[in-house]
Amino acid sequence: MWYFDSDYLEGAHPKILERLLETNLEQTPGYGEDRYCASAKDKIRAACDCPDADIYFTTGGTQTNALVIDSLLHSYEGVVSAQTGHVNAHESGAVEFTGHKVLTLPQYQGKISSADLSAYLEKFWKDENREHMVFPGMVYISHPTEYGALYTKAELTAIHDVCAAYHIPLYLDGARLGCGLMSRGTDVTLSDLSRLCDVFYIGGTKVGALFGEAVVFTHANTPAHFTALIKQHGALLAKGRMLGIQFDTLFTDGLYYEISAHAIEMAGRLKDLFVKKGYELFMDSPTNQQFIILENDLIERLKKEVSFSYWEPFDDHRSVVRFATSWATSEKQLKALEQLI
Amino acid sequence: MWYFDSDYLEGAHPKILERLLETNLEQTPGYGEDRYCASAKDKIRAACDCPDADIYFTTGGTQTNALVIDSLLHSYEGVVSAQTGHVNAHESGAVEFTGHKVLTLPQYQGKISSADLSAYLEKFWKDENREHMVFPGMVYISHPTEYGALYTKAELTAIHDVCAAYHIPLYLDGARLGCGLMSRGTDVTLSDLSRLCDVFYIGGTKVGALFGEAVVFTHANTPAHFTALIKQHGALLAKGRMLGIQFDTLFTDGLYYEISAHAIEMAGRLKDLFVKKGYELFMDSPTNQQFIILENDLIERLKKEVSFSYWEPFDDHRSVVRFATSWATSEKQLKALEQLI
Amino acid sequence: MWYFDSDYLEGAHPKILERLLETNLEQTPGYGEDRYCASAKDKIRAACDCPDADIYFTTGGTQTNALVIDSLLHSYEGVVSAQTGHVNAHESGAVEFTGHKVLTLPQYQGKISSADLSAYLEKFWKDENREHMVFPGMVYISHPTEYGALYTKAELTAIHDVCAAYHIPLYLDGARLGCGLMSRGTDVTLSDLSRLCDVFYIGGTKVGALFGEAVVFTHANTPAHFTALIKQHGALLAKGRMLGIQFDTLFTDGLYYEISAHAIEMAGRLKDLFVKKGYELFMDSPTNQQFIILENDLIERLKKEVSFSYWEPFDDHRSVVRFATSWATSEKQLKALEQLI
Amino acid sequence: MWYFDSDYLEGAHPKILERLLETNLEQTPGYGEDRYCASAKDKIRAACDCPDADIYFTTGGTQTNALVIDSLLHSYEGVVSAQTGHVNAHESGAVEFTGHKVLTLPQYQGKISSADLSAYLEKFWKDENREHMVFPGMVYISHPTEYGALYTKAELTAIHDVCAAYHIPLYLDGARLGCGLMSRGTDVTLSDLSRLCDVFYIGGTKVGALFGEAVVFTHANTPAHFTALIKQHGALLAKGRMLGIQFDTLFTDGLYYEISAHAIEMAGRLKDLFVKKGYELFMDSPTNQQFIILENDLIERLKKEVSFSYWEPFDDHRSVVRFATSWATSEKQLKALEQLI
Repeated sequence: MWYFDSDYLEGAHPKILERLLETNLEQTPGYGEDRYCASAKDKIRAACDCPDADIYFTTGGTQTNALVIDSLLHSYEGVVSAQTGHVNAHESGAVEFTGHKVLTLPQYQGKISSADLSAYLEKFWKDENREHMVFPGMVYISHPTEYGALYTKAELTAIHDVCAAYHIPLYLDGARLGCGLMSRGTDVTLSDLSRLCDVFYIGGTKVGALFGEAVVFTHANTPAHFTALIKQHGALLAKGRMLGIQFDTLFTDGLYYEISAHAIEMAGRLKDLFVKKGYELFMDSPTNQQFIILENDLIERLKKEVSFSYWEPFDDHRSVVRFATSWATSEKQLKALEQLI
Repeated sequence: MWYFDSDYLEGAHPKILERLLETNLEQTPGYGEDRYCASAKDKIRAACDCPDADIYFTTGGTQTNALVIDSLLHSYEGVVSAQTGHVNAHESGAVEFTGHKVLTLPQYQGKISSADLSAYLEKFWKDENREHMVFPGMVYISHPTEYGALYTKAELTAIHDVCAAYHIPLYLDGARLGCGLMSRGTDVTLSDLSRLCDVFYIGGTKVGALFGEAVVFTHANTPAHFTALIKQHGALLAKGRMLGIQFDTLFTDGLYYEISAHAIEMAGRLKDLFVKKGYELFMDSPTNQQFIILENDLIERLKKEVSFSYWEPFDDHRSVVRFATSWATSEKQLKALEQLI
Repeated sequence: MWYFDSDYLEGAHPKILERLLETNLEQTPGYGEDRYCASAKDKIRAACDCPDADIYFTTGGTQTNALVIDSLLHSYEGVVSAQTGHVNAHESGAVEFTGHKVLTLPQYQGKISSADLSAYLEKFWKDENREHMVFPGMVYISHPTEYGALYTKAELTAIHDVCAAYHIPLYLDGARLGCGLMSRGTDVTLSDLSRLCDVFYIGGTKVGALFGEAVVFTHANTPAHFTALIKQHGALLAKGRMLGIQFDTLFTDGLYYEISAHAIEMAGRLKDLFVKKGYELFMDSPTNQQFIILENDLIERLKKEVSFSYWEPFDDHRSVVRFATSWATSEKQLKALEQLI
Repeated sequence: MWYFDSDYLEGAHPKILERLLETNLEQTPGYGEDRYCASAKDKIRAACDCPDADIYFTTGGTQTNALVIDSLLHSYEGVVSAQTGHVNAHESGAVEFTGHKVLTLPQYQGKISSADLSAYLEKFWKDENREHMVFPGMVYISHPTEYGALYTKAELTAIHDVCAAYHIPLYLDGARLGCGLMSRGTDVTLSDLSRLCDVFYIGGTKVGALFGEAVVFTHANTPAHFTALIKQHGALLAKGRMLGIQFDTLFTDGLYYEISAHAIEMAGRLKDLFVKKGYELFMDSPTNQQFIILENDLIERLKKEVSFSYWEPFDDHRSVVRFATSWATSEKQLKALEQLI
C-alpha cells in the first residue's frame, strides 16, 4: 500500500530525531524556558528578518488557531475567514468554543479577495444596527490555502492594507507555509509575511516535525500574559524543549526550506504523472497538495493499492481527490503510483 | 548545576526514542487511527484488567483535565476538587474557560475525604435553593496528589461509593500515576483504579515519555463523539502515532513500572540524605516528590548549585521546598546533592 | 412625528397594565413559582392543545434563543439556521458566546427549505471527516421570518420530517408568532406548532406585552435542571409573576389573537396605501411587517415626518424600507402616513 | 399567610406603575435610546455626584454581575469575591459560564477585608508560577452583603486603595443599595461609591421596581461596544424605556430613598419584636434583612402562618432564618407577626 493522503504520514525528518537523541539527557527547565527554545526563536527571528518578533511554540494547527484568534479578539468580535477556511470548516467548532463567530467571505481556491473584504468591512461599519451584529475583529487567511493556492505579494499587500485601514489584525495560518515559500513562482517571502501580517504561524507538523507550530507576533503585539492564555487553552507543553529542539533544527542550515523544496519537487512530478496520462486537474496548484479529477470507478480501483484523500464530487461520474507529498515522498513511491494510474 | 525541580527535565526514556527511530519512515493514518495506537490501547486494557475500556491519547495534563471534565459535565454542573487540586490551583482557569466551576473541599496532603465529600453532596441536595447553585457533577482527585500523597484502597473505595450513591463520575488525575503504583506500601493497583474510577488518565509526560497522557474510560462511558470534542479542545494530534508508539513502549515489558520504580528508589534515597543530616520533612511522601523544610539561608546558598522548587513559607526563617526524581535521576546526582547539603 | 419602525414602540396593551395594577400588592413567591405563572402556563397548554407541554418564561428574544439553543445542543453540535436567521445575523454572536456555531442554509424570504436541509444533513453524515466538523444538532426557524414570510403547514411538516429522520430537534422562534397565526391565508395553528416543533417560543414583547416570551417544550423534552440553566444565562426574573400576569392576560379571552389581528389589519391597510399610490413591494408579506421599495429621495423627505426602518439598498436610486404595525397602530397614524406619501 | 421571604414579593411601588400608565401610548425608540432612559441617567448622575458617569440599564442582578464581570476581565483573569459572595454562591455558575473563575477570600458577615485582599494580591504577584494561575483581575463586593452587613467608608476606602495599587477595578453589587444608603449609622453615600468604585449597580428589583438595575461606570471606563456586549449576554431589552421610566421615577423627588427608608424602618421594628420577646439575633443588621436564631420547633410552627427564608443550621435545635422587609411592608403585617412569635 502506498500513501499519499497527507503530509503527516511519517514521523519526523531524520535530522530532528537525531537532535532529540543528542540532547535527550540534558536537563532543562520546562514550559519553553529552555535554551533550545531561545535558540530556535533567534533563528526564526533572523529567518523572518524581524528582530522584534515574539515567538511561541504550540503543538498543532487547530489549537494554534483557536488560541491566537481567541487571544486577539474582544468578546464582541469575530474572525473573518473564507467560507472554506480551516477554522470555519474543519476544526470542530474550536473557534466558536472560545465564544467567537467565524464571519465568512466567498473563496477563490480557498483565498479571499481584498475587494470582498473591503466591501464587507465598509458595509458593516455603515450599518446603523451594528451593535446587534458581530464585529469583524481580525482576518484569517491560510497560505497555502486548503486548496493549495497561494496569495501573491500584491494580493497580500492589498489585504494588509484593508486590515490596516480598519485597524484589525491580519493572521496567516501557515500550516504548510514551507511549501508556500518554496513553490515555484511565488513572490512571497518570510520577510514579506513578517511585514504584512500581524501574526502568523510557521507550521512544523506538516513540514517535517513530529509536531509543533511556531507562532510569530511581528511587532510587539503579543497579547498580555500570553503564556497564561496558552496554559488556559491546554496548549502549554511541559517538556517545551521538544518544540525548541525541533524548530531549532528546522531553522538550521535551511532544513525547513530543503524539506519543503523536496515536497514541492515531488508534487510537481506527481502532477506531471497525472497530466501526462490525460487526467484533468481540479486546479493547478503550485504546492505539495494536488487536486485531481478522477473517474469514480478508477478511484475505487486505485484505493485498493494507493491511499489518498477524497475531496468532493465533481460531476455524476467523477470526483476530486487530493494527493499530498512531503519531505519523505520517494522516487519509489512515485513510480509505484505511475504504474497504477 | 544539578536539577531536581521536576520529573520533566529530560527528554524521554531511551527505549521510547529508539522506537520512534525504528518506526520513523513507516506511513500511518493520522489522528490516532494507526496500528501503534491500537496496540498501545490493547496493552493498557490488559494492564488495567479492563477489557472494555475506551482509551484516548492526549498531549498534556491540563489539556486532559479540561477536556475530560468539560465532556462529562452538563452545563449546569461543576467539578468537586480539593482546594489544592491541580485543576483549581495551577491550570490558569482552564476548567472555568470551558464554562464550569471548580467546587472545592478541604485537603489533607492534597487528598479529599469521603466524609467531607458525602457531607457536601448531602447538603447540596437538601438545599431548596439548589437551582441557584452549581450542581456537583463529578469528582476530581489526583493520585499521587500535588503533595505526593496517596489514597489507600479503602479511601478510594469510600470515595467511589459516595460518587456511586450520588450518580456522579469519579475522575482520577494520574499525571504521576506510575510513581503512585510503585510506591512502597500502596495497596492500589491499575486494576483497582479501573474498577473504582469512571475515568482516569495514565500520565506519560512525567513518567518517561516526551509527552502524552492516556485517558481511560472504564465502562463504555465515553462521551458521544469524543474525537470531535478532542478536536474542538485543540487536543487532537495529527501524527497521533507519536502517542501510540510512546505508550506502546511504556506498556511493553513493564517499562512504565520500571521507570516509576527507579524514580521512587531515587526519591527514597534522596529523602534519606536529608533525614540523615537532620532536616525535617514537611510530609513523609512515598512518591517521587519530596517536600523538605529548609532554612531560608540554606535555600539561598543551595540555589547556586542545585535547582529545586520553592513550595511555600513554613515559618519566619524556614520554607518548604520540593525535590523531584525521575527515570533519569542518577547516583551521581544524588552524590552531588549529598555533598551540598 | 409618526413612528412605524417596529412593533415595540409603545408600552403594553392596556389590559396588561390594568392587570398589573390589580395584582400589585399581592405577595407571591419569586422566580416564577407564583400562581399567575401557573395559570398562564395552563392557558398556554390549552391554547396549544398540548397538555404535556412544559412552559418557561423569559424576558427577550435573543436571551431565549441563546438559552434554548445552548441547552439543547451538545458541546460538539451547532444549530442550523437560514443565513438571515436572527440568531445568525442580529444577536451580537449570542449563540457563539455559548460555544456553538450557527450552520447556515440558503434563505428564501428568510425561510429555509426542507430540501436544502435534507441535502445538508445527508452530506454531513456521509462525510468521513465529520468528526472534524461541527455536528448539526438542531434546526432553528423563525415564523414569521425576519422578512415577514410564513411557512405553510406542508413546509413545516416537511422540515419536521427531516429533523425527525435525523433525530434532531426543531426549534421555532415565534417573536412575532401572533401575527403569523392571524395572517390571512395561513394554515398553521398553535396546535400544529406543538405537534411539529420540539420547542418554540410565543413572543410577548412584540405582541403587546411590556416584555416576555413563553418557551414551550412540547413533549416532556425540557433539558434537565432548566431553571438552573435559565439562572446561569442571567435570564431568571426575581419577580417572575410579571411574566405570568402578562401571559395570563394575553391568553385570556383571546387577547393575544385580538392584538395580532389588529396589527395584521393595520398592516394590510398600510400596504394598500403604498400599492394604491403605485409604490412597489419588495415582498408581499401577509404579516405586520411590510417591505416597500422607495426612491432614496423620497426616503430622505419622509424621514423628516415619519420614522421607519431602513432595510437594504435595492438599486442605485431606490432602497427597501420596513414599516411595522402593532396592537397600538391607529387609523390616525395611517391617515397621517397616507398624506405624506 | 404573611410573607417576609424577600424584598421582591410584590409588584412595584405605585408611583412606578402610575408612570408606566401615563407614558404607555407614547412611541419611543427601542433598546434604551428613548428620552426616559436619558432622563433617568441624568438624574442618577446627579444623585451620584458624578457628571461623567456612563449608565446602562439591565433587568436583573445575576445578569448584571455576569455581564459586568465578563466585560471588565481579560480572558486570563478571575474576579475576587468573598466566599459567600452572590456571584460565588447563588448564581448557578453564571460567572464561570462566561469563562472566568471566582477567586475567594474569607468573609466577615459577607464582607471581605482589605488586609486579606492585600495579602492575597501580594502573594499572587510574588508567585513565580503565576502564569499557571488565574490572575485576579477585579474585586467584587456587595453592599449590603448577603448577610445584611455594610462596609464603612473607611473600609471601602481601604479596599479601593488596594485595588488602585494593583490597578484592578472595584465593582460593587448594589442589589439592595437603597437599604444600604438609608441604614442608620452608615457613613457611605452614593457620591462616595462613585468616587471609590470603578463600577457599581443601583438595584431596582429589590427596591420598588418591577425589575431593573442601573449599572454605573464612574469614570469613562465603560468597556468598548458595551451595548453589543449587553446584547450578546441576552440582556438588551427591546422596550428599554421600561427601565428608563422606572429609574426616572425612582430618582424623582427622592423616591428611591423613601422606599429604602421605609424598608429600614420596618426592619428595625421587626427586629425589635424579636428582641423584645427574647430571641437572639444571628447578627445585628442595620439593613432590611434580619437574621434571627429560632428554635427548630418554632420554625415549623411559624411556617404554617408566616413565610420567611431558612438560612442555615445554628446548633442542634436552632437555626438561622431571614426576615426581609420592603417598601410594601405594612404595620398590619408586623402586628400579625408580633402575635405569632
